Amino acid sequence: MKRKYSVFLKNVGSCSDRYCAAYGQDYSLRELFERAASIELLSGVDIVLTPDILEDIPAVEKLLKSTGLKAVSFAVDHFTQAKWRQGTFSSLDKRTRQEAIAATKEAMDIASGLGCDLVTIWPGQDGYDYIFQADYIEERTLFAEGIKEACRHRSDVRLSLEYKLKEPRTHSYLNSVGTTLLMLDEIAEPNCGVALDYGHALLGYENPAESVALLHKYGRRLMHVHINDNYRLWDDDMIAGSVHTLEYLEFFYWLRRTSYQGWLTIDQFPYREDGRDAVEESAKWLDCFEAVMDAADMDEIGGILKRKDAVAASRLMRELLFGKQNV
Amino acid sequence: MKRKYSVFLKNVGSCSDRYCAAYGQDYSLRELFERAASIELLSGVDIVLTPDILEDIPAVEKLLKSTGLKAVSFAVDHFTQAKWRQGTFSSLDKRTRQEAIAATKEAMDIASGLGCDLVTIWPGQDGYDYIFQADYIEERTLFAEGIKEACRHRSDVRLSLEYKLKEPRTHSYLNSVGTTLLMLDEIAEPNCGVALDYGHALLGYENPAESVALLHKYGRRLMHVHINDNYRLWDDDMIAGSVHTLEYLEFFYWLRRTSYQGWLTIDQFPYREDGRDAVEESAKWLDCFEAVMDAADMDEIGGILKRKDAVAASRLMRELLFGKQNV
Amino acid sequence: MKRKYSVFLKNVGSCSDRYCAAYGQDYSLRELFERAASIELLSGVDIVLTPDILEDIPAVEKLLKSTGLKAVSFAVDHFTQAKWRQGTFSSLDKRTRQEAIAATKEAMDIASGLGCDLVTIWPGQDGYDYIFQADYIEERTLFAEGIKEACRHRSDVRLSLEYKLKEPRTHSYLNSVGTTLLMLDEIAEPNCGVALDYGHALLGYENPAESVALLHKYGRRLMHVHINDNYRLWDDDMIAGSVHTLEYLEFFYWLRRTSYQGWLTIDQFPYREDGRDAVEESAKWLDCFEAVMDAADMDEIGGILKRKDAVAASRLMRELLFGKQNV
Amino acid sequence: MKRKYSVFLKNVGSCSDRYCAAYGQDYSLRELFERAASIELLSGVDIVLTPDILEDIPAVEKLLKSTGLKAVSFAVDHFTQAKWRQGTFSSLDKRTRQEAIAATKEAMDIASGLGCDLVTIWPGQDGYDYIFQADYIEERTLFAEGIKEACRHRSDVRLSLEYKLKEPRTHSYLNSVGTTLLMLDEIAEPNCGVALDYGHALLGYENPAESVALLHKYGRRLMHVHINDNYRLWDDDMIAGSVHTLEYLEFFYWLRRTSYQGWLTIDQFPYREDGRDAVEESAKWLDCFEAVMDAADMDEIGGILKRKDAVAASRLMRELLFGKQNV
Repeated sequence: MKRKYSVFLKNVGSCSDRYCAAYGQDYSLRELFERAASIELLSGVDIVLTPDILEDIPAVEKLLKSTGLKAVSFAVDHFTQAKWRQGTFSSLDKRTRQEAIAATKEAMDIASGLGCDLVTIWPGQDGYDYIFQADYIEERTLFAEGIKEACRHRSDVRLSLEYKLKEPRTHSYLNSVGTTLLMLDEIAEPNCGVALDYGHALLGYENPAESVALLHKYGRRLMHVHINDNYRLWDDDMIAGSVHTLEYLEFFYWLRRTSYQGWLTIDQFPYREDGRDAVEESAKWLDCFEAVMDAADMDEIGGILKRKDAVAASRLMRELLFGKQNV
Repeated sequence: MKRKYSVFLKNVGSCSDRYCAAYGQDYSLRELFERAASIELLSGVDIVLTPDILEDIPAVEKLLKSTGLKAVSFAVDHFTQAKWRQGTFSSLDKRTRQEAIAATKEAMDIASGLGCDLVTIWPGQDGYDYIFQADYIEERTLFAEGIKEACRHRSDVRLSLEYKLKEPRTHSYLNSVGTTLLMLDEIAEPNCGVALDYGHALLGYENPAESVALLHKYGRRLMHVHINDNYRLWDDDMIAGSVHTLEYLEFFYWLRRTSYQGWLTIDQFPYREDGRDAVEESAKWLDCFEAVMDAADMDEIGGILKRKDAVAASRLMRELLFGKQNV
Repeated sequence: MKRKYSVFLKNVGSCSDRYCAAYGQDYSLRELFERAASIELLSGVDIVLTPDILEDIPAVEKLLKSTGLKAVSFAVDHFTQAKWRQGTFSSLDKRTRQEAIAATKEAMDIASGLGCDLVTIWPGQDGYDYIFQADYIEERTLFAEGIKEACRHRSDVRLSLEYKLKEPRTHSYLNSVGTTLLMLDEIAEPNCGVALDYGHALLGYENPAESVALLHKYGRRLMHVHINDNYRLWDDDMIAGSVHTLEYLEFFYWLRRTSYQGWLTIDQFPYREDGRDAVEESAKWLDCFEAVMDAADMDEIGGILKRKDAVAASRLMRELLFGKQNV
Repeated sequence: MKRKYSVFLKNVGSCSDRYCAAYGQDYSLRELFERAASIELLSGVDIVLTPDILEDIPAVEKLLKSTGLKAVSFAVDHFTQAKWRQGTFSSLDKRTRQEAIAATKEAMDIASGLGCDLVTIWPGQDGYDYIFQADYIEERTLFAEGIKEACRHRSDVRLSLEYKLKEPRTHSYLNSVGTTLLMLDEIAEPNCGVALDYGHALLGYENPAESVALLHKYGRRLMHVHINDNYRLWDDDMIAGSVHTLEYLEFFYWLRRTSYQGWLTIDQFPYREDGRDAVEESAKWLDCFEAVMDAADMDEIGGILKRKDAVAASRLMRELLFGKQNV
């Protein structure tokens, strides 16, 4: 598989959590681009269209050009502003819904203007927290209608929806690969698909490899991949490969098997680390996993899957990791 | 809502776990029926068609008649026999798949013969345990084909599929409300729907009330409900109401709101309790929850859901439980 | 049990998460005090000694006096500043450890000066995130030494340690009731105890009632209680009582049984709610639970616990909630 | 580290779960011994003293001799018989407690007679399922008293206690490394320690490597290790190494660092696999991990732990797995 690694631009900077507003220093837009560009394995960048970025798209364009980084995707900021606190496309407030749609259309135009055909939507505020707090049917219907309208804005840009079980809400509407595919069926637009976040899949007790398979089976919907790692119970957003090993190998197998041609975008929260160095680590792990799969025999693996034999699966994994003569 | 409570027949008996083969004593078929019938709140019974039951359907018929219990649903035994260890409808072995289909058709005929139009399928063995053990696409396709064939056997009996995140496999194919609805779309038969197990929904970090809403929104697919309780992380199969309270109230609200007319079948594992008494406790809890909802103002609740206001939701729940002048 | 409810002062204001820096408006110190004081059921306040508060202790003193709120506890800010990113008492950097100790001593002096004998320490940054990142033995030893030194600063102020499984680190050192009690044994100072956070206990699959019992059994260590609610898998910091019901009743039973005389301090994150109203809801729930326990027969409950009978426990809970003639 | 791998004898046979009473065929005692002995990497065996085994200890002795397998530990059967359903040492029934103690003393005598100085106690039935079901203080006190008495039976045999968060009870008394160490302090006998089950530690969101460190720090209590794997949320008892990789490496590092000299006993449930082959797989994974640690520089690792640097930790792990020039 051709290595196409990207990163969310601000991942190479600093971040905060709900307790500490600033674990690290600030970086200028130029510094962020340069830090990303300094990582040899990366060739692209994903950018969240937060208000500060929207104010200076020409600067973004210039820095893309000067660093040679490809704009892989633009993510609409549907989550950092208080106005989205009770949802974006699913908001019960009509004006808020219209703003959410307008921001998406604007993002599609910006993307297209910068030679990028992919916009990412992570509706993290669309959901609920409390029992008896929400009308699960009506809000989902509003959500589908809003995305549909955005999709129709222009057919030359794709919208990829990113699901996540929870956080910042205790319950998200797009909470799993299954409900997201149902939502896509409801939206029924050809330029709408899924951005699979590896860590989000793990968090929901999904096997990310199986999620790739499901996205393929039910309409070939996989448009984008976000990469990070966690301990399965929360979106820890750690260095990719720092926790899971075998699940990553199976994930890469299924990306190849389903002929995924898109990018892998590193998306993590390096609270206490130097952001650039943490991203570089992720890229190196990804490259190690790719190398293992390059050396693997895809037909042999396919044959083992057809045996449904745990002992054979165990042996395969052991050999992938430690070589055929490992014991 | 009209109270229609049933129980899985053997729940009033004894059960085992993977360590202890017999926590309690054995009961004859007649004793089981009599124990179930002795619980005033119950008016029906669900029966798993294990080999011992299949041997004597006439006895079942007689006991149904003598106890006056309604046969609510027959469940196909796709999970207690070693031959299903690597799956039933999704098995890679053609003969095993055919047996799974045949057992289902037989169950449909038995049900119909006993005045029951509902068969339950819990494909607990259809899934996988290990990474790199399964072809997630092919096995799901086989599963859909098998269910489709069974559905077409006769249109006067409905097949309800029961999902569960895991156990006995570490990963089930029908693992969530979302993937189950996708499977139903693939199967595309009108007499196929879902048996929602309250505890299975909780186990998968689903909010059971929301699962009811989703089953309604995406095709009015809810055909049956299984009831029990757990601590959210495992299918503990405890007395219904012994752990959760507010989630149950919301669940009953959505059952009413979506006009569910089916049964609530108690489905628990009373390892260390007298099975009959544990079931009676469940029935009493259910009746308490129903009474709360009988006294509630459905329009008021609907209005609160439209406000998306956590404080209002909290107050509503407090008043449902402790009355309007509780503080 | 005498109702003594307090709240963390800033809970009646606004809060942020890692995505959104400000969900609500800012409130002045005076406004925060007045909002807390406007909640009838509250008679105390807990205050985190963040830099802004430390700058104006006289203002705090004046507002305590004018509102009549009792200063229940002062919490040392060992978690909002970047300098603590790799730990406080357990930091490998000696100067950082000394700062952590000095801040604690200062808090003890401030508390004492304001008529309060309790200081709370939540060492949220003391732990680790990654595999192979930490020396689990050495860092814990440093932690114990630091707390010991702080305890010896003055014997008229108590230090209560608050444990939590994780967050902001993926792994905390004080992660459970068990390891915290071991740490207390290592510290071996009489003025050191535990601040039990109800939600933290739930998060770690502890039963909070059992945690109270353990804190009593192993040295009568319970000094303080924080109250909130969550879905068991994360520290959602929701309105107390909005999720759990029966666990709260059992919690109050064990507080009474072990003669807890301290305060219940509401500690939640009302991201999308009006902070004051969310806190008032919690106080009202607590009062409802207390009222249930006031009406309960403690001896009857004690007798049921000695039967180890799940059916009897279920019936007891049903009767506590719905009355003796509920069905 | 010298490889000393053992297996629970019946692991090379067949097993059941709560749905299916027999996934595989039966094996005679002789066959079980021979199957274990046929795995080259194994040199010992652990045996649970179930009634069938107790009936023919001479046969066990003969088979130990003929196969050359060392008896590593005998586990008392405190979990497969209905009489233990409400606890063993913590039972409220005095006669049950006496039986539990007597069975332990008998096991100590049998062990000693077969040249083995280690008895394992897994009190899986000691705990509770329901809220308001148990007196957490009294039952724990009874437990400690019972173990104390057993320990004093003979000082030449050690008793190792195995903790587990839950299952078969929803809540165990020995539920974590912390509460187990507290219990050991209460028992206060020199021949009492801990049998750490790798999967049980994972299940409780413990990092098994850290659990080894804690057992060392608080009294050098680690006496025995059980090995298997799972997905962190349940005791799946899978092939060791089939899920986790990096956590295993850190686990082996801390075993070496704390000079653990005991055995690693494979303890898994191969529901759908040939038991012997599944055990052999585990042994091969363990050997691979040991080989990685043999090649690692212990001082280099120790130095990295002292830096508390996630990027350095990530690089270390990547190099352990893929070599120093992996990218």
